[in-house]
Formats: sequence, structure tokens, C-alpha cells
Amino acid sequence: MTARTHGTLYGVGLGPGDPDLMTVKGRRLLERIPTVFVPISEISDTSVAGTIVRDLLRPEQVVVPLAFAMRRPRAEREAAWRASCDRIALALADGDDAVFVTEGDPMTYSTFAHLAETLRETHPEVRMVIVPGVTSFAAAAAATGVPLVDARERMVVLPGPYERASLETMLRGFDSLVLMKVSSGLDVVIEALDATGRAADAVFIERCGWSDERVVGDVSTLRGLHVDYFSLILVRHRQTNGHG
Amino acid sequence: MTARTHGTLYGVGLGPGDPDLMTVKGRRLLERIPTVFVPISEISDTSVAGTIVRDLLRPEQVVVPLAFAMRRPRAEREAAWRASCDRIALALADGDDAVFVTEGDPMTYSTFAHLAETLRETHPEVRMVIVPGVTSFAAAAAATGVPLVDARERMVVLPGPYERASLETMLRGFDSLVLMKVSSGLDVVIEALDATGRAADAVFIERCGWSDERVVGDVSTLRGLHVDYFSLILVRHRQTNGHG
Repeated sequence: MTARTHGTLYGVGLGPGDPDLMTVKGRRLLERIPTVFVPISEISDTSVAGTIVRDLLRPEQVVVPLAFAMRRPRAEREAAWRASCDRIALALADGDDAVFVTEGDPMTYSTFAHLAETLRETHPEVRMVIVPGVTSFAAAAAATGVPLVDARERMVVLPGPYERASLETMLRGFDSLVLMKVSSGLDVVIEALDATGRAADAVFIERCGWSDERVVGDVSTLRGLHVDYFSLILVRHRQTNGHG
Repeated sequence: MTARTHGTLYGVGLGPGDPDLMTVKGRRLLERIPTVFVPISEISDTSVAGTIVRDLLRPEQVVVPLAFAMRRPRAEREAAWRASCDRIALALADGDDAVFVTEGDPMTYSTFAHLAETLRETHPEVRMVIVPGVTSFAAAAAATGVPLVDARERMVVLPGPYERASLETMLRGFDSLVLMKVSSGLDVVIEALDATGRAADAVFIERCGWSDERVVGDVSTLRGLHVDYFSLILVRHRQTNGHG
């Protein structure tokens, strides 16, 4: 008698937006695997990951949106995670594989890390393979031509929303900073950059990797304005000469 | 009369080692472009990037190794950068494109960032397009199943070699740390992990993305041992519950 074998769940990072910036491995999995799970964002009520892969999928592939109730109370969130895990385990039970796609990298501020943890607890029989992706900040560095780190430099990656005093401490302590999700509280970030004398080191990138990508070199011009949720700021000493 | 147009230099991040972890865009450029520049490492006197792409190139593609004298005095290094830039500009002068390949991401501790800066100074006529790549630390997180950052966590990326007091300060201040290039001074890192009570949060990854990849969960077992140059340690609070 052979034990019934579950399929594998592939957690695939799609990169920053341009479908050509996903990995060859991720693309190959998306071409092969019949069931594609996509997380639904509560910010926009749409799936960014779903948008990235939309034109790559064939009609016979099944796209299953999963909502995670990220802004709800903890008990509701946990129930949503468990329901998603049950849905995924069901898809794998007959031995078929499935893909869970996520923008950027699955291990960097991603829904997938939550999902994987819950799945390990609730369905330990499920085998997972994680396929890394290009992060939004690596893509932003490429788009702007500003290196993230070089030689002996140290880099810190900070998520929004920002508290001004703590941000100023970081701006004073690090050569290279990635400020993620600056849309909520952009003015706080601009004030902290000014107060630490680092405004000239900063560059703003909105919707990096999408066709409407926007780069702004003088961040002070953004004061008081609304920017897209997918926005970040890179800060790096311009005087670093790069010759190590 | 038409002005002579130079070709474009594409700086392509190849990702951590597995050629399937490069981007679709990078792969497509490598299939199309006749001249491929590869940096030579002085650590091993071979080209890691060249090894990654070796089986992807056709015999008619020209592979040009470039050495950068990274361990030499500054004047020699600068002369080496300029010579490489002249060689690249020559390849582009007739309108052909060229690729410069680099392991990981071109803007994260990469030879490419140096090269791009020198090229902008010495050959401002050259157009550059940078194609980001999967970093070694994103690949390590995928390989180990340890998320890099989640929710409101802050991450710091530190290059070796390490000074113990400064490393301990970082280990006490951040939930999530990426310790790059731990091979030179691994014992210092292990001592700092022990002193800050964070040894249980650490995982060691050697040659991530290669066929001989190795993951070690208990880093104290590596005390006194030699490890590969391409080794890193991820540190992240294990007690973080991941439900944000």
C-alpha cells in the first residue's frame, strides 16, 4: 500500500511588477502548474500579484484569490489564515501542485511568510518550496542608478509608518537606508531627512517596475502630496566614491 | 548626417547561483547579446558570474573577463576600472549592445556599481540599463524558510569582516540581521551571537543557490572551522509569531 502523496506548494516571488523581472524558475512553474493562488490586498481590494501574472496564464489555469483580513482583529485574521491554508491543502490533496504568487520576494514583508507559518502548523504534511524574487528596493536601486550598498557599507530596511525621532536616529547611524511604504506619513519622512541634512541623499520611487513608474530626485517637492501605496525612498551618501 | 549611436550596456544581476534564479529579462538579454563581460574575482581567480552563465551561452558569443584589482592600492584599482570602462566602450562603439553580468543584484555589494560610476565619468555617452537580481540573502531566506522581515520589523544588512562590539550593538538593536561574508572571522560572529543570547535565532547558509548548498541551524558547531567565502548568517527572532 502506498501512502497518498500531497502535491507541493510553490511560494513564488514575482518581483517588483514587470513580469520579465520574475525568475526563470518562477515563470516555468507558472506555465506548468494548474492552480494559482493570489493574495487579495485590502488596501486596494485587488491582487497586485494577480495583475502581474494576468497575461501569463492560460484560460485553463485556475486562479484562486485568497483574502487575509489583515486589518481585522486578531481572531478574524487567524481564522482567515486557517481558511486559506485549508483551501490550499485541499488543492494539493490529490497530488497536484499549486503556486502561491506574491509581489517582490516571499520572505520580505510578504503575505507568504505568514501563510507558510500557519500552513506548517495546520497542515504539516504539505511540502513547500520557496522561490525567491527581486525585491522592490533592488528594483528601485536599478531604476535610479543609486547603489544600495557597496564595500563596507551597512544598510537598514525600515517599514512605514514612521516615528520621526526613531527615523532620525537611523538616518544619522546608517550610510544606506531603504524606507519602505512611505505613502502613509511622507511629510514625517521629509522632515526627518531635512533635520538630519540627508534630503540631498534621498530619491523617491513610486510604482517601481510598472509602466507608470515615477522617480523624484528632490523629495521636498512631494511635501503635502498624495503618493501611491507602492512607494519607497532610498537614502545613500552621495559623497561615497564607490571605489571602496 | 546621422550621429553614430553607441550600443547599450546592460548590467544584469544573475541571482545567487542557480541559473534558473536569474530574471526572465536577464536570460533574454543573455540569449540575444553577442558580448558578455564577466568580472574576475581575486579571491578565487575565477569568475563566479561566468560560472553561472557558462552553460547558457552559445559558442559564437564572446565572453570577456575583466579584472578589477580590488586588493591593490587605490591608484592601481582606479587604473583597472578605467581600463575596463575603455574596453566596454569599445565594444559598444559600433552600435552593438553588451552585457555585464554579476552574481546576486548589481546594486548590492557588487562590482557593477563601481563600474557604472566610473563609466559615467569616463564615457558619459554610454547608455546603461540595470536589470536587478535576486540577492543572496533573499535566496538564503527562501532556502531556510526563515523570513527576512515581516510586518513592522526592521532589517539590517552588514558586511564582514566584523568588529565584535559593533556587531553586538546591532544584534541587540534589530529583530532581523543579514550578516554577509562571515567566512573571515566566523568565530567573532559566533561569540557575538552567544554574548547577546541570539545564537538560537541564527542560521548559517553556505553557497546558497548552488548544488552544494549547506544550511547549518546550530552555528556554534562551526566554531574554528573554515567555511566558503560565499557564506552568510541570517538572524531573526524565532519568537516573532508572524501574525503581525
